[in-house]
Amino acid sequence: MMRPGTALLAVAACVLAQTASAQPAPQRPPVFASPEVRADRSVVLRVHAPQATAVRLNASDMPGLGMGTALTKGDEGVWSVAVGPLPAGAYRYTFNVDGLMVVDPRNPAISESNNNVWSLVVVPGNDLMDVKDVPHGAVSAVTYQSSTLKRARRMHVYTPPGYESGAERYPVFYLLHGMGDCDDSWSSVGRAGFILDNLIAAGKARPMIVVMPAGHTRAGFAFGGPRPTTDEFVQDFLTDIVPHIDRRYRTVTDRASRAIAGLSMGGAQTLNIAIAEPTKFAYVGVYSSGLFGIVPMGPGAGQRTGPFQWEEDHKAQLDDAKAREGLKLLWFATGKDDFLVGTTRETVALYKKHGFSPIYKETEGAHTWLNWRDYLIEFAPMLFK
Amino acid sequence: MMRPGTALLAVAACVLAQTASAQPAPQRPPVFASPEVRADRSVVLRVHAPQATAVRLNASDMPGLGMGTALTKGDEGVWSVAVGPLPAGAYRYTFNVDGLMVVDPRNPAISESNNNVWSLVVVPGNDLMDVKDVPHGAVSAVTYQSSTLKRARRMHVYTPPGYESGAERYPVFYLLHGMGDCDDSWSSVGRAGFILDNLIAAGKARPMIVVMPAGHTRAGFAFGGPRPTTDEFVQDFLTDIVPHIDRRYRTVTDRASRAIAGLSMGGAQTLNIAIAEPTKFAYVGVYSSGLFGIVPMGPGAGQRTGPFQWEEDHKAQLDDAKAREGLKLLWFATGKDDFLVGTTRETVALYKKHGFSPIYKETEGAHTWLNWRDYLIEFAPMLFK
Repeated sequence: MMRPGTALLAVAACVLAQTASAQPAPQRPPVFASPEVRADRSVVLRVHAPQATAVRLNASDMPGLGMGTALTKGDEGVWSVAVGPLPAGAYRYTFNVDGLMVVDPRNPAISESNNNVWSLVVVPGNDLMDVKDVPHGAVSAVTYQSSTLKRARRMHVYTPPGYESGAERYPVFYLLHGMGDCDDSWSSVGRAGFILDNLIAAGKARPMIVVMPAGHTRAGFAFGGPRPTTDEFVQDFLTDIVPHIDRRYRTVTDRASRAIAGLSMGGAQTLNIAIAEPTKFAYVGVYSSGLFGIVPMGPGAGQRTGPFQWEEDHKAQLDDAKAREGLKLLWFATGKDDFLVGTTRETVALYKKHGFSPIYKETEGAHTWLNWRDYLIEFAPMLFK
Repeated sequence: MMRPGTALLAVAACVLAQTASAQPAPQRPPVFASPEVRADRSVVLRVHAPQATAVRLNASDMPGLGMGTALTKGDEGVWSVAVGPLPAGAYRYTFNVDGLMVVDPRNPAISESNNNVWSLVVVPGNDLMDVKDVPHGAVSAVTYQSSTLKRARRMHVYTPPGYESGAERYPVFYLLHGMGDCDDSWSSVGRAGFILDNLIAAGKARPMIVVMPAGHTRAGFAFGGPRPTTDEFVQDFLTDIVPHIDRRYRTVTDRASRAIAGLSMGGAQTLNIAIAEPTKFAYVGVYSSGLFGIVPMGPGAGQRTGPFQWEEDHKAQLDDAKAREGLKLLWFATGKDDFLVGTTRETVALYKKHGFSPIYKETEGAHTWLNWRDYLIEFAPMLFK
């Protein structure tokens, strides 16, 4: 008797034989796994590169690693490195093999970015980030036609558990990514969908729709393409994204039911959007960011040295009492070691000067997803209460 | 005045400077794009690998390429190859750099698989596959708890335009992937979401929910992991996936509103699911597949040589009049050059012998996504009419 399993193996052998013919070296590759996540939350990463002369790990969010940690060559041309134990969460990484950026060939989990793709390893152990047996929302890839940019664009949208079969309307939280990210990042490395699932299941956050748009309006600028501008995205956001969401989803559209937050570049965009429509959002969050250009950047910087054009340009809105009165939360958080910490401090001071009451948390850590996941876990429960 | 755009550039420079420090060679990489899709539908693929001795393209779906087409080394260590003109559609590819499988470092578009990730290049020019300015459905990543497999699993679900704000119930089409794929494949390389958008907008297909589950129940078997079995997935599908969909979405649950189809491994799973629940699906599609093990595989094979255990095991269901009477469509399609064409022919003959009226199309082409997208375009309009 030919069991289905056996027949599948025969097909697998056939497929593998075809694939193998594309390899210059016909021998079967060695058997190993990568990534290997150990019980103590350390992670072993491996790559088969028998002809390489140097293999390094590019994983800047992994604490204590620094940039360019070397892998060691072992048997059969398999290079490896053990890192951690790491804080529970998710980490992007690639291998640098003789100068070539290589996504882990054995790892199907990825996190997309604007210009490239990262391998992703999830380290379990955090009750609010893990995939738990709770009701799960869905994360959708949604295509919309941008009249601003005159092309189809993608965003990711989290709908809370029960959305697909219900009739209820929900508040909307717009969550913006950073320069090294894309609209996929908050739901992959940022764990936003699972974080919301867990916060909602624990009664800590209200069920809400989370919209994660694409903050880059141009592709590939890092490789010589055209410059991005904040203005282009702000227009796309206000003219196309918010109206599309309110047409498409069962949203509540009053100010008290709208929140916006962003990290790094997305934090600057958040402030630009909030000032352009000063009575649209009741909750504003800025993670590891502030008004770009307000001070010279770098950990030592922090002193404003002269007049700041942005403040001049938006004086009317900054001093508009209605902007402040309906604003339930203006929340900043940045790590002590973040290269933008001076920018955050000066931005907070600017808002205070104009009569706002921002909350500012200075945390441990630097400009990494370790902080941004934690900030989301702290910020989301404060919304729509 | 510090413009936001300028400030972003400063941040970009800072981020790039940090990233660059991870590279052993400190010089700035050359400026080029990959992939480059030309107006004539040819595609140029490039990769910067100055130290490599041989770079090959792994892109078995690209017609006329064969396996392991060589790239040519050009200026500044940039290797390139021009392929096509190609039929409009989408193509998975990786580079083989000295034996290492490399996702295109300049291409953020990917297609996930069970064991690895592919770069993806979309070649526009097909009205039913392109991203057009029509109402778009959403493709969601949905997490469900499998009681069969005792863990959380992911599937992808297409909901048609208007689902999120409506109250209507929809028929459900279950669409299964092949051995080299995962639950992401039909909506990435398979273009399923955009194909459905276009078919629905043209009035050619009824609005429907398309469920794309994960057909692999084990990870990494190709690298020495445990064997997959069809049985495990069939149980997960019937016990967990279908009930989850009917609880979660506004579905119509009668037989006439349920369809199932799959390609290759997913085609065999389709037949195993349909025979396990012979009155559950009114529409059954098998793309480039059949009953695995019915004949020896390979393009020349096609003669059944003895009794077939699957037929013996399922005689009662095969001869059940109710299974045939409510079945509105039993549709097979396989390419003339497909290594499973003999399997399809014998499977069609087996169903005919038991009184079924299968439709069988033998098309041009082989075991590739070129055919599977076309089969979906032909199959979906026949559903739920």
